[in-house]
Amino acid sequence: MSAVVPRPVRPGDRVAIVAPSGPFPPVVVWRGLAFLRERYRLVFDRGLFARSAYLAGDDERRRSELARALEDDDIAAIIAARGGYGANRFVHELDWQKLRARPKWIVGFSDITALHVEAASVGVASIHASNVTALGWCDRAARASMIDALEDPLRSRRYEGLEVWVPGEAEGPLFGGNLAILQACAAAGRLEVPQGAVVFLEDVTEKPYRLDRMLTTLLVGGHLRGARAFVLGDFTDCGPGPDGATAHEVLRQLLAPLGVPVVAGLPAGHGRRNDPLVFGGRARLVAQPSGGVVEIGG
Amino acid sequence: MSAVVPRPVRPGDRVAIVAPSGPFPPVVVWRGLAFLRERYRLVFDRGLFARSAYLAGDDERRRSELARALEDDDIAAIIAARGGYGANRFVHELDWQKLRARPKWIVGFSDITALHVEAASVGVASIHASNVTALGWCDRAARASMIDALEDPLRSRRYEGLEVWVPGEAEGPLFGGNLAILQACAAAGRLEVPQGAVVFLEDVTEKPYRLDRMLTTLLVGGHLRGARAFVLGDFTDCGPGPDGATAHEVLRQLLAPLGVPVVAGLPAGHGRRNDPLVFGGRARLVAQPSGGVVEIGG
Repeated sequence: MSAVVPRPVRPGDRVAIVAPSGPFPPVVVWRGLAFLRERYRLVFDRGLFARSAYLAGDDERRRSELARALEDDDIAAIIAARGGYGANRFVHELDWQKLRARPKWIVGFSDITALHVEAASVGVASIHASNVTALGWCDRAARASMIDALEDPLRSRRYEGLEVWVPGEAEGPLFGGNLAILQACAAAGRLEVPQGAVVFLEDVTEKPYRLDRMLTTLLVGGHLRGARAFVLGDFTDCGPGPDGATAHEVLRQLLAPLGVPVVAGLPAGHGRRNDPLVFGGRARLVAQPSGGVVEIGG
Repeated sequence: MSAVVPRPVRPGDRVAIVAPSGPFPPVVVWRGLAFLRERYRLVFDRGLFARSAYLAGDDERRRSELARALEDDDIAAIIAARGGYGANRFVHELDWQKLRARPKWIVGFSDITALHVEAASVGVASIHASNVTALGWCDRAARASMIDALEDPLRSRRYEGLEVWVPGEAEGPLFGGNLAILQACAAAGRLEVPQGAVVFLEDVTEKPYRLDRMLTTLLVGGHLRGARAFVLGDFTDCGPGPDGATAHEVLRQLLAPLGVPVVAGLPAGHGRRNDPLVFGGRARLVAQPSGGVVEIGG
């Protein structure tokens, strides 16, 4: 099934800002909002800045905020203020068919992977990209790439010279996100990786043995059976531990036997660059021993 | 279904020692083995002491070691040398019906929860207790409680004065273990909580928001739907984080709405005491506002 692709965002469009996960320093988000406000009509209320321990306000606040945005006919995109943790607490019980009925872009990453998983489950494309916090401090190029992704999401983007772990060629719908959240969604019985997907993975501050546990259990559970290739982004601050194993060694050892091409080093995730990726869009991968090429969109 | 209960271990019995998870300082395990050897004929080979990064030797070594022990007709118990991480990498593909055909006690905790999950899936009782490493440094009382559990597993053990989070009464087969490993088994599609179980949970060095994610996803996935009560053990070195939320606050907030009794403070897990618990054995819980009583076995 090819995904429903929401229409591109246009200057002047209404864009909802939501905080389904963790709280954040208001000043950074205000800076990100100021940038977006130059171009779009932003929809959010003060509840966005709520804080209860590690959550951006209670479940009911976060649930109704996202539910309202999903149902709104006149919104072109829903951009997450921040990741952190908290989306798993309520996103799985929302009516995601409403997103399919009124397609709009879900935008964010890290904990927002739980929203991408739900968008994919109803066959709607979404944008894995910076949250508003990152727009508050990132450079001009990163801000421009966000606007570019929102307004021309299917334009072809090409990455060359990626590290090749397993050579080969593959093409399929791009899907994935934060490994810990993918595992959490699997435990919640909500992870459906699209058949034939090119699977993107990234994570932050997870020890290599934890990455092993997450990926191992996804593999044992058969969740990645339909994957046609793997593209790894940043594994930021992920060890090595005192035992010396690195994140890349661990991931490579688990992915190499799968018989599908694997490349690493896509500039996306929690590293310095977090280039937007359209999940549900097409990805094509040509991994030769001389270097990997990934083409997204087009 | 009531669990198959292996026969009690007797002095002079053959007992297999396995290392399905992480490596360990040999000297501590030798001390634990010396203690067990006073009473049982220990079966293990030098491969037990293998080390490759965070694993006690490669998957093939750990797999064949455990598979051999499961098939051995003349072994009364299989005791894990240490937890750590690594069991998820192979235990789910072993033939656990062999344990049911030749019942023997699986003994250990933490990462060994993955073995308890598999034992429960074929309806065989198992013992949640210290690994051999802990027997290497623990006090006389803890060592005695291990022998007592092995040799008189169904004797009634009673805990009074536990902290009551939700009052009520319940009875059912005891089951559970390390929360992170239960979540991992759920993601692997291998978690089957026995119907009507009294669910025991413990963990170590997990931030409260991570405990939230683990328990939340188990709840969303319906894995704890059949639980008749919850008994919490130690949540050792589990925060609070900079946001101030404590492990107990987070767990209580998630468990309290379930409508079943919940008590906390059972001396089991990664804390100073790790009293043996017979999974698959009967647990009875009487939680009154004045204090909680848990009776295990009998």
